[in-house]
Amino acid sequence: MFFDSEAILNMEKRYRAKFINCLSGPKSANLIGTVDANNKTNLSIVSSCVHLGANPALMAMIIRPRAVPRHTLDNLMETKHWTVNHVTSSIIKQAHQTSARYEKDISEFEAVGLTPEYLNDFPAPYVKECSVKIGLKLVEVVLIKHNDTEMVIGEIQHVHAPKESLLDDGPIHLGKTDSVSVTGLDQYHSLSTHYRLSYAKPEKEVEEA
Amino acid sequence: MFFDSEAILNMEKRYRAKFINCLSGPKSANLIGTVDANNKTNLSIVSSCVHLGANPALMAMIIRPRAVPRHTLDNLMETKHWTVNHVTSSIIKQAHQTSARYEKDISEFEAVGLTPEYLNDFPAPYVKECSVKIGLKLVEVVLIKHNDTEMVIGEIQHVHAPKESLLDDGPIHLGKTDSVSVTGLDQYHSLSTHYRLSYAKPEKEVEEA
Repeated sequence: MFFDSEAILNMEKRYRAKFINCLSGPKSANLIGTVDANNKTNLSIVSSCVHLGANPALMAMIIRPRAVPRHTLDNLMETKHWTVNHVTSSIIKQAHQTSARYEKDISEFEAVGLTPEYLNDFPAPYVKECSVKIGLKLVEVVLIKHNDTEMVIGEIQHVHAPKESLLDDGPIHLGKTDSVSVTGLDQYHSLSTHYRLSYAKPEKEVEEA
Repeated sequence: MFFDSEAILNMEKRYRAKFINCLSGPKSANLIGTVDANNKTNLSIVSSCVHLGANPALMAMIIRPRAVPRHTLDNLMETKHWTVNHVTSSIIKQAHQTSARYEKDISEFEAVGLTPEYLNDFPAPYVKECSVKIGLKLVEVVLIKHNDTEMVIGEIQHVHAPKESLLDDGPIHLGKTDSVSVTGLDQYHSLSTHYRLSYAKPEKEVEEA
């Protein structure tokens, strides 16, 4: 099937949102943990975390100011810290439930039944039930002027990952952390058929590492 | 295992790159097709495509100027157009091979054995072997000053997707398009256990849709 700009523009609003959201491909599913200045916790699912660089270790995420409640953005602007926690297959429903529009005085941790966890004096709460947990400090918020989304950039300060998921040369095996992937707004997948390929060089065929 | 900023800083450079690259979670695997002003084709694998918004329909990707050859960025700055093509399980090795540092006068299409395809007068080449194919027009390049990466923002102008993958209410079933996910620099996964959840509302438990 072929769709051009006009066909996309003519789609019903919610149909278009679901369609366009799938086009970038499978996405990461992360829970973002924050507190406000009064230590009230907040938790939200985000599928737009993206690697920015390894040195300095930076991660970004896209926040839509008008389409989602701004509690996460408000909190991290106030306290300058947040956590990124990989959604695992056993908590997909609770993680998805955090996308409901709860009032500001309700903590999604409590509402959906996940446990805030404070580790190594990091000022934002992790999700106890998650496998990979990352603590970030605010570096910059970049406004994308074309649609008023904001790209929040953080420096990776703390990382917690299960020992058995760490491969000898650095990577994390996300099958062993049970990290899931999300497509669009509501389709969840486990990862299967895991394999690694060798470093690619011209004139040499890549092979399984 | 716990790693703090100092532990991350002290990691050997390639170890750190592999480790940090895994932290955002499972990523999309896309092939970016471009031509230069002389219609010489180029193809590169990118794992940083991210949904920016549905109306206007925008997609972004992160390009590392120093770490990867700039052929893709040079081309899309010249011609203002590029394609995003979902990597499928049958072409993982060819897709990965495009990350080798080929000289500018070599087309990765030819070098790895994938077929450039021009559709509906779109000025950049798609990958014939891919299932979901998207044609984008340059909107803006945003420099991320903290590490000199660049976020390239494009407007989605054309979309090609298999009819059988289109769900009634808008989304694309990425199991049916055989789109794969990538972790870090070299781990590839198929998607399994696909399921959809209902729209989340407070006071209502989410369920399979």
